[in-house]
Amino acid sequence: MGEFDLIARFFNRRPEQGIGDDCAVFTPTAGTQLCISSDMLVEGRHFFADVNPEALGHKALAVNLSDLAACGATPRAFTLALALPEVNEAWLEGFSRGLFALADLHGCTLIGGDTTKGPLNICITVFGEVPVIGGKSKALLRSGAQVGDDIYVSGTEVDHVGQARLALELMRGNVKADAAALDSMRHRLERPTPRINLGVALRGIATSCIDISDGLLGDLGHILKASNVGASVQTDWIKGSMEFALAGGDDYELLFTAPPSQRNALQAISSKASTRVTCVGQVSRELGLRVLDEAGLPIGKSFSSFDHFSSP
Amino acid sequence: MGEFDLIARFFNRRPEQGIGDDCAVFTPTAGTQLCISSDMLVEGRHFFADVNPEALGHKALAVNLSDLAACGATPRAFTLALALPEVNEAWLEGFSRGLFALADLHGCTLIGGDTTKGPLNICITVFGEVPVIGGKSKALLRSGAQVGDDIYVSGTEVDHVGQARLALELMRGNVKADAAALDSMRHRLERPTPRINLGVALRGIATSCIDISDGLLGDLGHILKASNVGASVQTDWIKGSMEFALAGGDDYELLFTAPPSQRNALQAISSKASTRVTCVGQVSRELGLRVLDEAGLPIGKSFSSFDHFSSP
Repeated sequence: MGEFDLIARFFNRRPEQGIGDDCAVFTPTAGTQLCISSDMLVEGRHFFADVNPEALGHKALAVNLSDLAACGATPRAFTLALALPEVNEAWLEGFSRGLFALADLHGCTLIGGDTTKGPLNICITVFGEVPVIGGKSKALLRSGAQVGDDIYVSGTEVDHVGQARLALELMRGNVKADAAALDSMRHRLERPTPRINLGVALRGIATSCIDISDGLLGDLGHILKASNVGASVQTDWIKGSMEFALAGGDDYELLFTAPPSQRNALQAISSKASTRVTCVGQVSRELGLRVLDEAGLPIGKSFSSFDHFSSP
Repeated sequence: MGEFDLIARFFNRRPEQGIGDDCAVFTPTAGTQLCISSDMLVEGRHFFADVNPEALGHKALAVNLSDLAACGATPRAFTLALALPEVNEAWLEGFSRGLFALADLHGCTLIGGDTTKGPLNICITVFGEVPVIGGKSKALLRSGAQVGDDIYVSGTEVDHVGQARLALELMRGNVKADAAALDSMRHRLERPTPRINLGVALRGIATSCIDISDGLLGDLGHILKASNVGASVQTDWIKGSMEFALAGGDDYELLFTAPPSQRNALQAISSKASTRVTCVGQVSRELGLRVLDEAGLPIGKSFSSFDHFSSP
């Protein structure tokens, strides 16, 4: 099966003008800005070789949609570039099923891409829109955190930061669990839920936002640096391992800041978006990041964040 | 060197809002559509392992800009996703130099991307703009060829279709040449010139356009299919191997159609864009593609086009 057949058979769902042309032609909605994110997923680094292809199709798009969520952008379209070691129809069928199920859920259209032979590599670039009102962009950035803001993390009772890392360690055999627990954890690692509804609802409410891909503390560090502020983070809200919750990585929950005056608004948003948000700390004038134990005393231990390039 | 250092050191030239945020924030020019293209380059398939990294940086962006040229789009921005087997500073320095030299030449800004560890893979997504005038897009498509149109290919006396394939066969050792000839040919394979100025000038003149990446006849076939027409192609203009000129691949010249009434306009455009264009055939009502010898008689030989997925 050649390149053209592959595209036609599994990925030909491009309804916009420019189907089959050298470029996809995309008409941005008037009065909006585009938010653009590109993520590359590589076997052995972002997923295991034996991962279910449907879960992989889901995750490849989910990590990109999570970046849109962090900017408060409404998903519109994506491109897919795919290097495959061989044409495996069952694999492609599963992969495209997982990919399109999530794309359809968010009205995000595949508008173009590329396929080639090579070591398995999935590169998705995603396009979302945020309104520009009175000349001012409504995109959520990392740089707006204010002294006195609350710091929040998204996640539900059963679906929270730290679980993806726990799943990874279970699958690596570093942590023991029964088959049912492993299965439920694996789901969390392989099928993250991009918090699109929450992100969109946070426009105009949150002062800064990021998605947690490298660990809560590491990603909070990006907000603090961009906003030139510090923070203290409590730990009494953590379920399970403190290390995994604070520095686990691959969580794809939203971490954001908002002033105390927005507490009621946030409860309404959280309820409407069906996504729990938990206050985990406060932004301070004093630079640096202080992790506090249940008595409010600083924890000396350092937590190293997850880095897709240098970590094992 | 971790992921963040890599980005900061070699690729941190993102002047738009959203630097270091989860998404790049991009403001399309009012009254335009976006043309978007994504290409993935893999070692051993699109380039040799020992390719000069500066040439590779050039080519990775050039093949994407060539897609914009084929749509008549003005380059604006691109994202770069890069999987690297190791951090090799000399390699990254050369690669980024070649990449940015071409990007700067066309005012095309790096706005975001991703780096990860993995088998060498370069995925660029490029964004260009075409005006929308009176509700009508000025993007060049494959589908507008009209019966009676002339068929043109770009290229100069020293820089023409077929040379990239000749270079490939020289480097594979299938064709013999002296060192000077090999060097000059290698340049053609490794440093294609995207025909941006020509593509932009063809808006409103050409009825259809494509860039030649899979071979002249194969890519002409895409125009004919999309336009529901046929064509005859002459061969008296060919320099060197007919096989390489008609089915060589990796040329990145523009192949386009225009009515005979535009012949004078095309000469002016060609002169202004400093890019020679050669009339190589005519669009016909009769479907199919006829290749004619110098006496105007059909050549029976079939030419198979280049396919990055199934070809050796």
